[in-house]
Amino acid sequence: MPKTSNIRIFVDIKDLKTGQVVELGKEQAHYLLSVMRLEDGAKISVFNGISGEFDCRLIINGKKTASLQIVDKTKDFKTVPDIWLLFAPLKKDNTDFVVEKSTELGVSAIFPVITEYTISDKVKTQRWKAQSIEAAEQSRRLDVPEIFEPLSLKEVLSKWDKKRKLFFMDETGAGSSFFQKTNQMTEPLAFLIGPEGGFSVQELETLRACPFAHAISLGPRILRAETAAIASLACWQAIKGDWQ
Amino acid sequence: MPKTSNIRIFVDIKDLKTGQVVELGKEQAHYLLSVMRLEDGAKISVFNGISGEFDCRLIINGKKTASLQIVDKTKDFKTVPDIWLLFAPLKKDNTDFVVEKSTELGVSAIFPVITEYTISDKVKTQRWKAQSIEAAEQSRRLDVPEIFEPLSLKEVLSKWDKKRKLFFMDETGAGSSFFQKTNQMTEPLAFLIGPEGGFSVQELETLRACPFAHAISLGPRILRAETAAIASLACWQAIKGDWQ
Repeated sequence: MPKTSNIRIFVDIKDLKTGQVVELGKEQAHYLLSVMRLEDGAKISVFNGISGEFDCRLIINGKKTASLQIVDKTKDFKTVPDIWLLFAPLKKDNTDFVVEKSTELGVSAIFPVITEYTISDKVKTQRWKAQSIEAAEQSRRLDVPEIFEPLSLKEVLSKWDKKRKLFFMDETGAGSSFFQKTNQMTEPLAFLIGPEGGFSVQELETLRACPFAHAISLGPRILRAETAAIASLACWQAIKGDWQ
Repeated sequence: MPKTSNIRIFVDIKDLKTGQVVELGKEQAHYLLSVMRLEDGAKISVFNGISGEFDCRLIINGKKTASLQIVDKTKDFKTVPDIWLLFAPLKKDNTDFVVEKSTELGVSAIFPVITEYTISDKVKTQRWKAQSIEAAEQSRRLDVPEIFEPLSLKEVLSKWDKKRKLFFMDETGAGSSFFQKTNQMTEPLAFLIGPEGGFSVQELETLRACPFAHAISLGPRILRAETAAIASLACWQAIKGDWQ
């Protein structure tokens, strides 16, 4: 009997249906055959971010090539709430961490924003995409967050769709408490977290003058940027999102 | 004029008073003189975890020795809420991360718990203490979380003070939603997060049978252990703790 695996992979194919055979790319075939050492016929879960989740059987076509036959639909598609995370890229490990954790916490899109004190302006969105796919596979999400191309804070604010409320973490402590503001935190919404050095005085003034932007505070201690990003998403999901 | 620094350090001295001179240990003197290159007279904040926060002046006594003269009390002491984090140690980076982030999020004590599927049984509590002090310094906490010595889950439960409610993350999804349970989450309380592999069936049965333990769920996605630890602390602080 071929082993049943707990493996769950994302396939970038628009339409998935029972009976269909999906050719795997080189990397995924390598992962399943050489890293995970799966046998022909092994059971795998797949999702494509729009059709739900399916059970598949692995078909090994050669040493390095494989495909999947879709056997059964196991979950209907369900999207995460419409909540974006805008954040100023941090040092490598911390950015990796934010991408992984925000995906687990059900963010719908990740938006790198370049602020005055942003240290890292080399934003590797391809790397972020790969990381968010991996986190989506492991967290059993049915979709993958969208990763936007970086923009300056000024551009972001000037192009902002005013239907989406923006909550920014005001580390000066001048914002309302998170919980107090939750009744206003209806979808679509976005959280904006500044860089390690915080927003500049000018940026804070601009943000405070935006009618769609609301300052919030995350308590009496100074949180690092990556902690604030994760905390705000977790709190929102618990109070208003899909953890209810 | 000597530079004013933004440096804030913890000193392990029971009583701090204006006018007092505090001798610095070798490591802290090295940090201030050689790493931060502070000059004689530089301004520093200190806290000892019980007396509040003080402004001090650096006194350089030699190439490698220094002391601090306490100039003024700047903050009265305030403790964090009485909330413990019990968690099964993870791989090194993830454990480091939990210690740092839970300190920022105002945990009062960190308690390593060895469960059936805990990978790492080498718990370096000395390392954790140093990490939590650093995070307390940076997050501007006035105290430092207590780090307990590791115990097995069985021992923890058998010695448990029943006045402290225990909320454990039930990754089978059988727990109540976090927000639903918050009205019961009064201090003193503790959150318990299992290891990467989850609790064993036996452990879940034992926990469910404990009258002081309550199963909670953190939504429809599978969170990694470190994400669950941080999310539970952040949500509690936002809803019931000192972020209000």
